[in-house]
Amino acid sequence: MKRATRLHDSIRRGGQPQACRAAPSNISVFSGIQPTGIPHLGNYLGALRQWVGIQDNSPKSARLTFCIVDLHAITQPQEAEQLRKRKTELLATLLAIGLDPRRCTIFEQSRVPAHSELMWILSCVAPMGRLNRMTQWKSKLGVSSDQDAFQEKSAAAGSKLGLFSYPVLQAADILIHRTTHVPVGEDQAQHLELTREIASSFNKTFKKDILKLPITLLSPAKRVMSLKDPAQKMSKSAADPASRILLTDSPKAVHDKLRKAVTDSIPGPLTYDMQKRPGVSNLIEILAHIQRRQDFDNVAKEVSELSLKAFKDHVADAINEHLEPVRDEYEKIIAESNREVLRFVANEGERKARESAEKTLAEVKEAVGI
Amino acid sequence: MKRATRLHDSIRRGGQPQACRAAPSNISVFSGIQPTGIPHLGNYLGALRQWVGIQDNSPKSARLTFCIVDLHAITQPQEAEQLRKRKTELLATLLAIGLDPRRCTIFEQSRVPAHSELMWILSCVAPMGRLNRMTQWKSKLGVSSDQDAFQEKSAAAGSKLGLFSYPVLQAADILIHRTTHVPVGEDQAQHLELTREIASSFNKTFKKDILKLPITLLSPAKRVMSLKDPAQKMSKSAADPASRILLTDSPKAVHDKLRKAVTDSIPGPLTYDMQKRPGVSNLIEILAHIQRRQDFDNVAKEVSELSLKAFKDHVADAINEHLEPVRDEYEKIIAESNREVLRFVANEGERKARESAEKTLAEVKEAVGI
Repeated sequence: MKRATRLHDSIRRGGQPQACRAAPSNISVFSGIQPTGIPHLGNYLGALRQWVGIQDNSPKSARLTFCIVDLHAITQPQEAEQLRKRKTELLATLLAIGLDPRRCTIFEQSRVPAHSELMWILSCVAPMGRLNRMTQWKSKLGVSSDQDAFQEKSAAAGSKLGLFSYPVLQAADILIHRTTHVPVGEDQAQHLELTREIASSFNKTFKKDILKLPITLLSPAKRVMSLKDPAQKMSKSAADPASRILLTDSPKAVHDKLRKAVTDSIPGPLTYDMQKRPGVSNLIEILAHIQRRQDFDNVAKEVSELSLKAFKDHVADAINEHLEPVRDEYEKIIAESNREVLRFVANEGERKARESAEKTLAEVKEAVGI
Repeated sequence: MKRATRLHDSIRRGGQPQACRAAPSNISVFSGIQPTGIPHLGNYLGALRQWVGIQDNSPKSARLTFCIVDLHAITQPQEAEQLRKRKTELLATLLAIGLDPRRCTIFEQSRVPAHSELMWILSCVAPMGRLNRMTQWKSKLGVSSDQDAFQEKSAAAGSKLGLFSYPVLQAADILIHRTTHVPVGEDQAQHLELTREIASSFNKTFKKDILKLPITLLSPAKRVMSLKDPAQKMSKSAADPASRILLTDSPKAVHDKLRKAVTDSIPGPLTYDMQKRPGVSNLIEILAHIQRRQDFDNVAKEVSELSLKAFKDHVADAINEHLEPVRDEYEKIIAESNREVLRFVANEGERKARESAEKTLAEVKEAVGI
């Protein structure tokens, strides 16, 4: 298995080096994930595996901070007991995929008050009009991207403030840890841009260069699509659980879901063609990503003579082989007998994250005069 | 001098008893003031004197919490050094008028993170449409009260999120201290109503009766008007400093400002008539309020034969007599040699406010699942 690309290579490929002022010794990576259920293969190939790659390949001096963003999760209704359970499961998953709490700071957002505190302070520099143009806000309201959400009275009026203002919390999450690099998917690029604007605006308003402007590290695995509707991204919120592979799915479940995956009935060899054969091509991409490859056409050639059924089993086997150690590790970590360890890891993460966040908040408060 | 009305009398007069579920032993009073300069006579007669009255007349079991709301102050641009200075001056003023830090919790909002933390959580239940209907938001945008601010694109778009979302921070300020009674001016009644709605909505969403619904204690001294334009409220932000009496103004400054106060040239005895003689009537009301009286017509009769000049001097004398002990006390407290004491009071206030706020926040987080 090829190693993850080195951090600096990632920056060269996906980042915007002109905005990066971080010397290698000042690298600070931050990313977050919502505790809304066990991560699926899309989360893993799109983001989480990159986190592990960054951990394994970044200089020792780099600060690596990974956040379970429960304050973001509550912008949608949650059942309290389930949310708590999901936070524990997510922490166990992050450890199971290989994040090392001795190397990284892994913590729950709501346990570090400075995130909410900076969020309010940044609210005083973040322009309403800019937030109203956010694509995700519009899509959550069901307003098309060329419409002004404020003009769609009924949609905007009924929605909650948190759904509108959360990009400012996201900016606070990133800026509070003096982040230089944020590994995120393409759908978050607009939020990162807003984060940079808010940071600049803050620095300009208070005439001090306090908040660092982070750059984006785009993941090479851009989008994993739904197994049931290859026009849609694989998603936690899709109604049909067979549309996604969870990292903790059993080998049998993976095979069953793959067998039911929507493909096509085009005769002849299997080919890679996202336009004409989205279902087959999605499975080819998954197979390639698992092998850390981007040469989808070559991958397609290697499996082209398989029957559809054999191809699906082949992809399932590859997924299972890759996930087996993750699942084994997860089962160990989540076991009742290990809960004390998990609590210790969460407490240690909180302690380190507070230390990092409070340092920035103190500088911010000094500049603001509060 | 008459004593301030007792808390329970105030509730009967100004409150909405049907919403008050607090047993006398559970009374919790909260109010806040922005550190945007030394308070003026309008602040004092409209709010601050009532705080002292509440302190002196409420049962010992009542919790009294008074907050220097610096996080609200930064919704408007502030100069950091000046803001810090004004916070110290405001704390000294609150002590000088007679608030006792052994009896009350007096603290700076930004030093208690739970306010910002609860603000975010409440953002997830506060509806956008409700905030967009707030009168103060519209007036700050320069949008008339019958217009929809979201429809006035340029005004809303250029404004900052904090200006739109601060009523939710205000709700958090009140709710985090399990407040039962809020002494505020009429202009804040709409915000109190929103606070109650947010609290209800939270309790309903999370199926727990955690947040208490506070009631309003309206001050008998409703509005003190500008000395230079009796159609406007006395205000910190008015351009002409002669339009307001500061609590720390020297006796000479009070006389000078009164002499320059806008009245009228109607001949004959002085009369109380807010419509026809707003300037004179404002001075009569100030004189009455200083004496804790509401019988403005009688007060007018007592001064009716004075010349305008003698009347103004009479009002200035009354103000000076009332403010003299406050000024003396202020000078002692703010003296450089006493700064250590002031810091101790601020730290103690922070400690008590954190204890109170963190208790509520823990219950809220438990209910939300974070």
